[in-house]
Amino acid sequence: MEFPGSHILSVNQFSREDVEYIFQVADSMQPYANRERITKVLDGAILGNMFFEPSTRTRVSFGCAFNLLGGHVRETTDVKSSSLTKGESLYDTARVISGYSDVVVMRHPQSGSVGEFAKASRVPVINGGDGPNEHPSQAVLDLYTIRKELHSQNRSINGMKIAMVGDLKHGRTVHSLSQLLLLYDDLKIRLISPAELRMPESIVDILKQKGHEVLETEDMESELAGNDILYLTRIQEERFASKEEADSYRGRFRLNQAIYTRYCEPNTVIMHPLPRDSRAEANELDNDLNQNPGLAIFRQTDNGVLVRMALFALILDVVHKIDDTSSDVGWYTERRFQ
Amino acid sequence: MEFPGSHILSVNQFSREDVEYIFQVADSMQPYANRERITKVLDGAILGNMFFEPSTRTRVSFGCAFNLLGGHVRETTDVKSSSLTKGESLYDTARVISGYSDVVVMRHPQSGSVGEFAKASRVPVINGGDGPNEHPSQAVLDLYTIRKELHSQNRSINGMKIAMVGDLKHGRTVHSLSQLLLLYDDLKIRLISPAELRMPESIVDILKQKGHEVLETEDMESELAGNDILYLTRIQEERFASKEEADSYRGRFRLNQAIYTRYCEPNTVIMHPLPRDSRAEANELDNDLNQNPGLAIFRQTDNGVLVRMALFALILDVVHKIDDTSSDVGWYTERRFQ
Amino acid sequence: MEFPGSHILSVNQFSREDVEYIFQVADSMQPYANRERITKVLDGAILGNMFFEPSTRTRVSFGCAFNLLGGHVRETTDVKSSSLTKGESLYDTARVISGYSDVVVMRHPQSGSVGEFAKASRVPVINGGDGPNEHPSQAVLDLYTIRKELHSQNRSINGMKIAMVGDLKHGRTVHSLSQLLLLYDDLKIRLISPAELRMPESIVDILKQKGHEVLETEDMESELAGNDILYLTRIQEERFASKEEADSYRGRFRLNQAIYTRYCEPNTVIMHPLPRDSRAEANELDNDLNQNPGLAIFRQTDNGVLVRMALFALILDVVHKIDDTSSDVGWYTERRFQ
Repeated sequence: MEFPGSHILSVNQFSREDVEYIFQVADSMQPYANRERITKVLDGAILGNMFFEPSTRTRVSFGCAFNLLGGHVRETTDVKSSSLTKGESLYDTARVISGYSDVVVMRHPQSGSVGEFAKASRVPVINGGDGPNEHPSQAVLDLYTIRKELHSQNRSINGMKIAMVGDLKHGRTVHSLSQLLLLYDDLKIRLISPAELRMPESIVDILKQKGHEVLETEDMESELAGNDILYLTRIQEERFASKEEADSYRGRFRLNQAIYTRYCEPNTVIMHPLPRDSRAEANELDNDLNQNPGLAIFRQTDNGVLVRMALFALILDVVHKIDDTSSDVGWYTERRFQ
Repeated sequence: MEFPGSHILSVNQFSREDVEYIFQVADSMQPYANRERITKVLDGAILGNMFFEPSTRTRVSFGCAFNLLGGHVRETTDVKSSSLTKGESLYDTARVISGYSDVVVMRHPQSGSVGEFAKASRVPVINGGDGPNEHPSQAVLDLYTIRKELHSQNRSINGMKIAMVGDLKHGRTVHSLSQLLLLYDDLKIRLISPAELRMPESIVDILKQKGHEVLETEDMESELAGNDILYLTRIQEERFASKEEADSYRGRFRLNQAIYTRYCEPNTVIMHPLPRDSRAEANELDNDLNQNPGLAIFRQTDNGVLVRMALFALILDVVHKIDDTSSDVGWYTERRFQ
Repeated sequence: MEFPGSHILSVNQFSREDVEYIFQVADSMQPYANRERITKVLDGAILGNMFFEPSTRTRVSFGCAFNLLGGHVRETTDVKSSSLTKGESLYDTARVISGYSDVVVMRHPQSGSVGEFAKASRVPVINGGDGPNEHPSQAVLDLYTIRKELHSQNRSINGMKIAMVGDLKHGRTVHSLSQLLLLYDDLKIRLISPAELRMPESIVDILKQKGHEVLETEDMESELAGNDILYLTRIQEERFASKEEADSYRGRFRLNQAIYTRYCEPNTVIMHPLPRDSRAEANELDNDLNQNPGLAIFRQTDNGVLVRMALFALILDVVHKIDDTSSDVGWYTERRFQ
C-alpha cells in the first residue's frame, strides 16, 4: 500500500512488505521512545484523539506517540459530551473534526463506524477499535512483539509455534492477529479454548488454507509444551449474557509460575493484550509471573508506542525527516533503564 | 474597542470596525489553518479551556485554534470533576484558574456566569457560551462565513437578503447574529418560524429600527425564493417542556435537495450552527444536500478556527508577530485540499 | 534526599534542607510563572497526569506547571474510563503508564495507592493525593506560602504563631502541614476545633515533643488574637455519616471581615486549602474578606504552580538548565499584574 495520506482501518490492507516496513520504521523510533533523543518532526501538527468508548491504554499510547513526534493532541473522551447524542451523523462529525486536525484516531463502540467516519474525513484516520470489528494497531504491535521476542532468540516468525488461549470467540485481538499470520509461512498454531468459545470457523479455515498447521483443543496443559509464544486473552465479561456465564469459564485456562515451570520450555514468551484482571477470582494470568523474563506483556505496551509512532510517521510522510529534527534529551531518564 | 487584554463576552461590544478588523485578521490565519505554514507565536502560552457543559465542536475548535498559534491547552470538561460542586464561587474559580493560564475560554450553563467569572479573572476571558445568553465567537464566525460566501459571488453584506428559519425563539445563534446585523445597512431579513417559536419582539424591533426590511412568516416555501443566505436552526429539544412538544415542530421547516431545487435560486447559501440532527425522524436539513455546493455548514466550522485564532491573536496582542515566527509544514496535507 | 529520579510520596521524606532547597528553586520559577520569560527545558517530555478522583485545581496546577517548563501533558481524569474497572492492578497500570511518560502525577481515592503504584513505575511519581493519607505538594506550597508571607513582613517561620481552625480531624492538609512544622523551631500552635473534630492525638504529641507550644481549644474568638497565620479548613461533608452531622458544625468557626477586625491584628495572614464553600449557608470564610490584603488564599494557589514546577525540575534534574533555554514572552500579560 501507499502509506502517505492513507487511512489505517483494517489489518487486511497490509501486505507482508507493508508490515515489515512498519516494523523497520518502528525500530527506528526506539531512541525517541527511550528518551535518548527527541524529535520535533510533527511540531505544529494536531492529532484529534476521539475516544467514544472508555480506554486508557490505547488512548494514552496514541497521544504519547504523537507527542513524542512533537505534535499537539486534542482529545474527546466521552460520548456524552459529544454531539453524537444530539443525533449528529458520523459524516458530519468527520467533516467537522477533520477540519481541525492533521490526523484522527477514533475508537467507537459500533462495528464499521470508523470506516464510515474515514470516508468523510479530510485527513488520515486510524481505527483505534470499532467495537468487535478491528483494532489494527493492536494486531501490528502484537506481531511486532512476536518478531522482536523471537529475534532476541535468533529466530523468525516463519516456522514459529504459537498457542492462543482463552476466549477465542469474542477476542478481537486474536482474530486480527490471525489475519496477520496469513502473511507468514509454516506456522504451528494451537487454539486452546472452551468448546463454546472456539475461534470462529472462518478464521480457522483461512489459517489452514494458508498451509499453517492448526490444532484446536480444550485441554490447555497438554498443549503448553513446545510453543514459542503463548498468547492469552481475557474473559470479556461484557460480551456474555451474564456475569455467571463469564465466571463459569474463569480458571480453566489460568497460567501461573508453577504451571509454566511444569509444562513450558524455558524462554517461552507470554503475551496478553491487557488489561489483565489481577483480582484473585479472575484466575487468568497470575502476578507470580511478574518476574518471569518470558512475560512480555509490558514489552507489548512499550512496543505499542513504537508502532503507533511508525504509523503516524508513515501516513503523515515524515519517516525520512525524523532524524533531521532531532536533538539530545536533557532531563533525568535513568530509572527507565533499570 | 481596544482588543489587547480585553474579554470577549458579548457581540454587543463590537463596532463595525471591530468586526471587520477581526475578519481581516481571520483572513490572515488561512495559511496556518490550512497547514501551509506553521507559527509559534504563542509558544509557551497556556489556554485554560473550561467547559462546564458538554461540547465537542466549540471546545475542540478553540483548543485547535490555540495549538495552531503554538500554545498549550489545559482542559476541564466535566462539571462533576470540578470544585463548583463543592460550593466554590465563580469568583474563586476565576482567581485560581486565571493564575494558571494566559487566556481562558469558558462555557457554562448559567446566563451571565462568564461575565461574572471575567470580573475576577487576571487574564482575558472569551465567552464560549453562557447558557441561553451569548456565544459571541459563533455569531462572528457566522457573519464571517456570510461575508466570505457573498464575496465569492462578488457581493457584500450590505444589501443582502437573509432568511432565518426554524426555532427563532430559543436559538441563541440567531439572536446574536441579529445583533451583528445591526452593524450593516439595507438588509432584507425574513424570519420563518412557527408562531409559537417566533424571534423575540425586542430583536425584531431593533432590526426594524435600524432600517432593515423584516418579514415574519410561518410559511417557509413561499419565502425560500430570492434569498442570498438561508440560516437554519435546530429544534432544541432541551428547551421544550417535553419531547412530544419539540417533535410537534419537526418537519415543518425541513430543507432537502428537492425543496431547494424547486424554490431556491442556484447558489443560495445554506448555513446551520450544527450539530445537525441527521436521524431520519429529525426532518431538519437532509443529507441529500451534502453534495450541494451551496451547503456552507462545514465551511462555517472551518471558519470557526480562523475566527478563534483571530480572537486569541487580537486579545493577546500578537497579530503583527505571527508571520515572523512562521515556517514551512513538512508533513502530508494533500487530502485536505481534495 | 537525592531529588533526581525520586518519587515524591510523603512530606516525611523531606529534611529541613530539602524543603528549603525546594523553596529556593520555587523562587527561581517566578519569572516563568509570571510570564516574564518562557523556558523549554522539558521540551519533548511527557507528564502522565492520572486523576482517579475528581480535581480541578490540583490537576490543572500540575499540568500548567509542566507546560510552563515546556513539556507535554497527557491526562486521564475518569476512573470509569480506565482499566481499573476491569480489575487491572496498580502494578500493571504503573508498568504500562510509566512506559509512556517521563514523570507521573497520580491522585487516587485509596490510601497508600500511589506508593504502591510508584513501586512498579519506571519513572518518578508525585503523589497528587491518595485519599485521606498524603498530598505532599499541598503541604509544601502551604509552608512556602507561610514563609513568603512572613518574609514580606521581615519575619521567618521559626518562632511564628499559627492557628489551625476547623475540622482538624479529617483535614489531610493540616495533618501534612503539621509534619512539616516539625522541621522548624519554637512555634506557637493553636488548634481550634469542635471537640469531636480535634487534631489526632498522635500529631499533637509529636508537635509537643518537638518543643512547640501547643494549645487545643473549642473557642475560636478568644484565640484569634496574636497569630501570624490563620489556617482555616473546610468542613469535609464527604467524610461525615450524614449531611446533617456535617451541617451541625457549620458556622461555629466562621471568619468574616467584622470578626477579623475585632479580634485579629492587622496583617494577620488568612490561609485555606480551597475550595472555599461560598454558599451563604456554608459559613466558612466570607467573601467580604476578598479585598483584605491579608487574605492569602489565591497567593497560595499561585504558589502551587511555583512549587510544582520546582518539584518537576528537581526530580527530572533540570534545575541548572532552565535559564539556558529561556526567552522573552511576546504576548499580552499586563492584566496579571494589576
